[in-house]
This record gives sequence, C-alpha cells and structure tokens, in this order.
Amino acid sequence: MSTQIMKQIERTLRNGPGGQGPLVSVADHARQLSVDELSYLIQATSPTESAELFQALDAETRLRVFQDLAPAYQGKLLSVLQGQDINSLVEALAPDDRASLLDELPAAVREELLTSLSADQRQMTALVLGYPRTAIGRYMSPAVLGLDENFTAGQALEYLRSRIREPETVYLLPVIDQDRKLTGVIGIRYLLGAEPGDRLAQISDVPISARADEDRREVARRFMKHKLVAMPITDADGRLVGMLTNDDASAILDEAAARSAARSGSSELISRSYLSTSVLRIVRSRIVWLVVLALSAVLTVQVLEIFEDRLDQVVALALFIPLLTGTGGNTGNQAATTVTRALAVGDVRLRDLPRVIWRELRVGTILGAALGSLGFAVASLVYGMDIGAVIGLTLLSICVMAACVGGVMPLLAKKIGADPAVFSNPFISTFCDATGLLIYFSIATAVLGLN
Amino acid sequence: MSTQIMKQIERTLRNGPGGQGPLVSVADHARQLSVDELSYLIQATSPTESAELFQALDAETRLRVFQDLAPAYQGKLLSVLQGQDINSLVEALAPDDRASLLDELPAAVREELLTSLSADQRQMTALVLGYPRTAIGRYMSPAVLGLDENFTAGQALEYLRSRIREPETVYLLPVIDQDRKLTGVIGIRYLLGAEPGDRLAQISDVPISARADEDRREVARRFMKHKLVAMPITDADGRLVGMLTNDDASAILDEAAARSAARSGSSELISRSYLSTSVLRIVRSRIVWLVVLALSAVLTVQVLEIFEDRLDQVVALALFIPLLTGTGGNTGNQAATTVTRALAVGDVRLRDLPRVIWRELRVGTILGAALGSLGFAVASLVYGMDIGAVIGLTLLSICVMAACVGGVMPLLAKKIGADPAVFSNPFISTFCDATGLLIYFSIATAVLGLN
Repeated sequence: MSTQIMKQIERTLRNGPGGQGPLVSVADHARQLSVDELSYLIQATSPTESAELFQALDAETRLRVFQDLAPAYQGKLLSVLQGQDINSLVEALAPDDRASLLDELPAAVREELLTSLSADQRQMTALVLGYPRTAIGRYMSPAVLGLDENFTAGQALEYLRSRIREPETVYLLPVIDQDRKLTGVIGIRYLLGAEPGDRLAQISDVPISARADEDRREVARRFMKHKLVAMPITDADGRLVGMLTNDDASAILDEAAARSAARSGSSELISRSYLSTSVLRIVRSRIVWLVVLALSAVLTVQVLEIFEDRLDQVVALALFIPLLTGTGGNTGNQAATTVTRALAVGDVRLRDLPRVIWRELRVGTILGAALGSLGFAVASLVYGMDIGAVIGLTLLSICVMAACVGGVMPLLAKKIGADPAVFSNPFISTFCDATGLLIYFSIATAVLGLN
Repeated sequence: MSTQIMKQIERTLRNGPGGQGPLVSVADHARQLSVDELSYLIQATSPTESAELFQALDAETRLRVFQDLAPAYQGKLLSVLQGQDINSLVEALAPDDRASLLDELPAAVREELLTSLSADQRQMTALVLGYPRTAIGRYMSPAVLGLDENFTAGQALEYLRSRIREPETVYLLPVIDQDRKLTGVIGIRYLLGAEPGDRLAQISDVPISARADEDRREVARRFMKHKLVAMPITDADGRLVGMLTNDDASAILDEAAARSAARSGSSELISRSYLSTSVLRIVRSRIVWLVVLALSAVLTVQVLEIFEDRLDQVVALALFIPLLTGTGGNTGNQAATTVTRALAVGDVRLRDLPRVIWRELRVGTILGAALGSLGFAVASLVYGMDIGAVIGLTLLSICVMAACVGGVMPLLAKKIGADPAVFSNPFISTFCDATGLLIYFSIATAVLGLN
C-alpha cells in the first residue's frame, strides 16, 4: 500500500520541474505516509527531488521529518533549501542534535546559522560544541533543571510544576548546591512519595554521573549497566552542565555496534544513508581495508611459492586449497565471534587468556576430529587413501590452530586497545590462510613422501 | 588491584573443601569486589567453588549477585545450592527475570519453586510464563499500576503517592477504563503540571502500546524508534497486563544483535557465559555451521577439478588461488555488511534491489579497477605480463561480481524471512570462492591460450 504511494510520489517528482499540479499531488500522497516513510523517501531521492518533496509537506510534518533525518542528510537538505525558513528548522532541534548537524556544515554556513539562533539556544549549542566529538558532552541535553538541595520536597514539586514544560527529562532530577555542583539525584516518584517538609539534601540519592569530557561509549555503557533512564553530566569541577537520556545512550551504543559490525566486515561505517551516499564515498569506506587485506594475502602467494615444486608433483593438492583455507577461516571466526562477545559482556577478561586457549584447544580438537574424519572418508573414496590422510590430518590441525588463533586475537586486540571486531573476520582469515597452507604442505610432504 | 583479590579468592577456593578458615578469608576478600566482579568470578569458577563463594557473601550482596547473573547460570547455582534458602532468592527476582530462570530448570524443580512462591508472585509468574518465549509478554513486568480514567489529576497524584513503592515504573502511567482496557498514557511530568481538577480521560495521550503475544524484537524496535521510557502491554482484548521498560527493550535488542553477530561469524549464540559453558556445548554451537560450510566448499574442489589439466600446464596459477578467493570474500562481505546495516535502520527496503545492484556494480568496478591495476603491476613484475594480465582482469571481475552478490544477499535473506547476518560472511565467502575460481580459470584459459 504505502509502497505504491511512494512509487507515485517518486514518479511525480521525477517527471520534471515541480509546477503547481505535481506539487499538490505530492502533498496529497505524502499525507498518507508516516514520518519514517517520508524520511526514507527524502534520503532515497536526489537532492532537488527531496527538497521538492520536503517543501510539499505541511509545517509540522516538515519539522518532524527534519528531526528524524540523520545529521549528514539534514545538512544536505539545508544546502538545497538555502534561503528558505532554515532557521526555524534549526532552532527547533535539540541542542545536541543541532551540534551534530552543525558538524556536517561548512564553517561559513555554520557561523551564519549560529548567529541566527536565539540567545539561549546559541549559548547551549556553543556549550555542546565546546566538547570533542568523542566526548559525552556532545550528546547530552544542556537544557537541564537542577533542584536546589535546600529545597523541601514540597518546594521542589512546586518549582517543577511551574517549569514543567522546560527540561527534556524530569524522571530523574539532579540536585545541586549553591555553586551548581551536583550533590545528588532524586527520582520524581520518590519526590512524590516524600513528606512535603523533607529537605532534598537528606532524601536525595548518590548520583551515578559522568564528566562531560569522558568518552561517549564508556559513559553509554555505564548508563546501560546501571539500567538508568537519565544521567547527570558535570564539568571538571563537578558542576551540573547537562543530562543524558536513555535514547542518547542507545544511539551511541547502536552506532558503536554498527561501526564494529562494519569493521568485522572489513569496511568503515558510512555516516549517511546508503542510497544517498555517493559511490565514491562508499569506495572510500572500503578501499583501504581491501588493499591492506590483499597485500597481507600476498603472504599466501609466498607460502605457496615455497611449495611450488611439490604442487607440480601432485597437482591434485591444489584442488583442496580453497576448501582448507575456507574451513580455517570459518573456525577462526567462530572462535573470534564468541570471545569478542564474551569480552563485550564481561564474561571474559584479559587475565583469562590461558583459559581461553585451553578451551579453544579442546573445542578445536573436537571440531577438527569430526571434520577431519569426514574429510578423510570423502577424499579417500575419490582420491585414494594417501590424499585422504593428508586432507584429514590437515583439517584436524587447521581447526585446532584456527580456533586458538581466533580465540586469542580479540584478547590481543583488547590488550593493545583496538576494537576486537577489527581482528575478527578479515585478519583472522588472512592469517589462518597462510598458516593453514604451511600446515597443509608440510603434512602433504611428509605423508606423500615428496621432496 | 581487584585482579589480585580475584586470584586470591580463586586460590583459596581451589585449595580444598572449605573449612572455617578459607571461607572467612574468601568473605573478607569478596567484600572488596563489586557485584560485577563477583558475578564474573562465580561464572568463571567451577560449580562447587562458585557455590562456596556465593555462600560466603552476606545476604544482601548474595541477592544482588544472584540478580546480576544470567538465567542459565542462576539455574546452575540453584542446583548446587539445593536445600539452601533458594526460595527467598527466587522470590526476590522480578517476575520476568524469574520466568527466564524457570525456563532453565527441570520441570520438577520448576513446579516446586513455583509452589513455594507467595500467592501474588506466583500469579504474576504464571502470567508471564503463559506467553511463548519469543513473545514480548515474557519480558514485561506484570506488576503494573493502572490509573482509572475517571480520576482527576489530583486524585491520580494522591493514589500514586499512596502506592509509590509498588510498581516498577511510574515515569509513564497507563490509564485504563473500568474493564481494565488501556485507554491512554500520561507522563508523570504532565500529571504534575496539570490542573488538579482535570480528568485523566481528557488529558492523557494516545498510547504507543504492544500486545503481549507480539514478537519481542519487533516490539523492542518500536520501543526504541519512538524513544520511549516505558510501554504498556495489553492482552488480545486490549486490557492492560504489564509494562515494558527501556532496560527490557535494550536487553532484547542486545541479544538479537549478539545472535546476528554470532551467525555472521557462522556460529550460534551460546546462552551462558563462555567460561562456564561446557566444551561440548560450544562445539555444538559451531559444528553444524562448520560442516555445512565445508560441504558447500566442496563446490570449490569441483570447480578446480574442471580446470585440473590447465593447472597442470601452468602450476603458477595455483599460487594466486587464496589471494583471489580471499579478495572476493572480503569485497562481498563489505557490501553485505553495508546493506545489512542499511536494511536494519530502514535506509534500504526490498524495493531498492535494482538501486542496490546499480550502486554495487559501480562500487565494485572502481574497487576492482584499483585492485586490478595494483595486481597487474605487481604480478607482471614478478611473473611476466601474461600472468599479470590474468591476475589484473580476474581481480577486476571478482570485485564486480562479489560486490553485487554481497549487496543482493541481505535483501534476498530479508525477502525469505531469514536473518540477513546469516547470509553475510559464511555463505557469501563460499559462493564467491566458487564463482571467483570459475572466473579466474576462464580468464586464464583465454589470456594464456590454454586448452
């Protein structure tokens, strides 16, 4: 149903410069779509088409769609809308989202937009922009209501009632002293249940907070670990500067997970939507990895060169190369994926290296014994006992080697402070390929009596 | 520091049956560790050792550590603690966590535990257990406070104040009619800001809710998409039966992401901690995938057999097999990872298949041209122009093919309702290996004039 409507909108947009007629029809159709579907369409169409579609929306939908778009795409849309009511769109964003958008814009546009903001919004945006991109300060909401620790519960409720529309969150309220230093937090439910005369200083809890310059991912993980709904953020002196909410923390972790997934697929995460990213930018996100991996794979050529004369004696040995290296890569990745996950959730720590090796040694041996027997049986039938024995023994050895390598790599990555995901798929495969070939031809040389 | 303490505890536990002395020393050391570190230790030690450590903790810490453990491990601990104060541990769990634990236990133990619960806890647990494991009803908290829609804001606040310690969440309050049917929700901040005389029916919002039998992952995604802090859950007749909180939704999505990651590393997610899972169980989570992939890799043996006589003529061709198949696999995985992510966040939909192919065709061509030129240059220098041309052309073709295959596979998986992650690494590599070899030897045959 909505797929049909999307198609119609796209067709109308494509059929030429929007006169009155087409725009009305686009507007009519667009009304039947959700904000989600509209953002998707805006990302999937060309810049001019998307601007046309955007302008056909009513003011409120326009705002909601704009807020739903990724910062990279908000920036692109703004550049096409130039001269339109850009300011109101930007003014309506939350300060942290606005900072992400401004990051995407050229310096000149950024300055212009900043000066066009209202004074308090400009101040809050500047505060957020003051932190590095990796700091949690960039992701907090600076519009935060602090409760004076000298308030009674009754005064606090009265104060909240008068300012109820302002702050982004009032589930968990930060309590501050006269210097604006964070001294505690109080859940609104406890505030409700407290005696009206209780002083906040007495009834507030010890806060789980973060400093604005801390790494965003570490803070987001802490947020999730403690199952918070909101977390106060302070400056270096402990003064309250903002609040982090659960959707901010989820978004940070989601992006981190996507980045890891991209790396374990040996590419870099692209920051905008796939269909609106230029082909060259996608190439850029992949080429470095691809070349590095291809260059490391030259190692396999060199290993095979050592054994070229033996290959010449028994060409049949070449037939099993992809099967054997592939199995090694798969076994290695299985171990790496499991250990990476165990590291992430804290089941395994660096000190467990010996335990991990001992486990993977046993797991690899069992897997290798099973695959090796299977390989021996099948290869013996077709190519004779000798080749069968070579294949069987090689599968056994490769599985043991690959499981251990795969189990150790993520710990090694963690040790040197790298993302374990980087080490899982791409490098393990290359490493296991080269090592596997060494094992294969050593066994073949011995069993077949080559020289 | 805490690593040292952990080591001491482990040493004490290992050195024999806990007399009075060792247990005291364990308790002393354990006091210096966090709940996190204690759970880790309990999972990392043997069952009897962990039981000993657990019993050395004070009652409150014991409860917190028990709640922090994964259900699978809670079950294991209970089986060792048999006869101890198991009931109070189970009684203290939230009903949804308790249901997950009961799932792990043998039917007889489960029944026994259920009957030992207090009446209202038993009833809530039974309610949660009534839903299938994949339904959101299993993950909700059934201890939920509904506000009568005929309440005024003032009455609602009064009612909340009197029952403030009971429900799990009061950030967002469900509003119900006399049949307990969900008619709205109201944020506690709006309740605070409302006029005391306003009727809830007038001031409550349209709820974003879910039915208890809906798929847990779909509901969790909806939860995140709308940036909720809590979501009312209803039965088939729209009656309020529970609330889902943001930590429940995060946990569901986190598990789903881990399962996908495991599958893209060609293994199944293990449900308990890596170090406490038996070696055989880890083997079981990997063996099926490994055998299936090895059997599919037999395809590469068959492809190579076709070209065996050509390999015999130019043995040097064998040297590049792992390099070429590896590059194909990497290119395919890059495309698959990007498209899988785009599908997950809604940037790409099934209808975009032609656009995805067109993009990956161009991306693959550019990547292939770059890698192919590099390959041609290097291989020409070492092995002569002919081999250089074969390698260069093959790299170009393989990159184009693999990028398209990698881009299409996730869409195909989605189309047939499978997890796109399953199709990314393992199958794409195997498929690209076989296809890549066909391309390689076809090009070699043509360029080198083999027959």
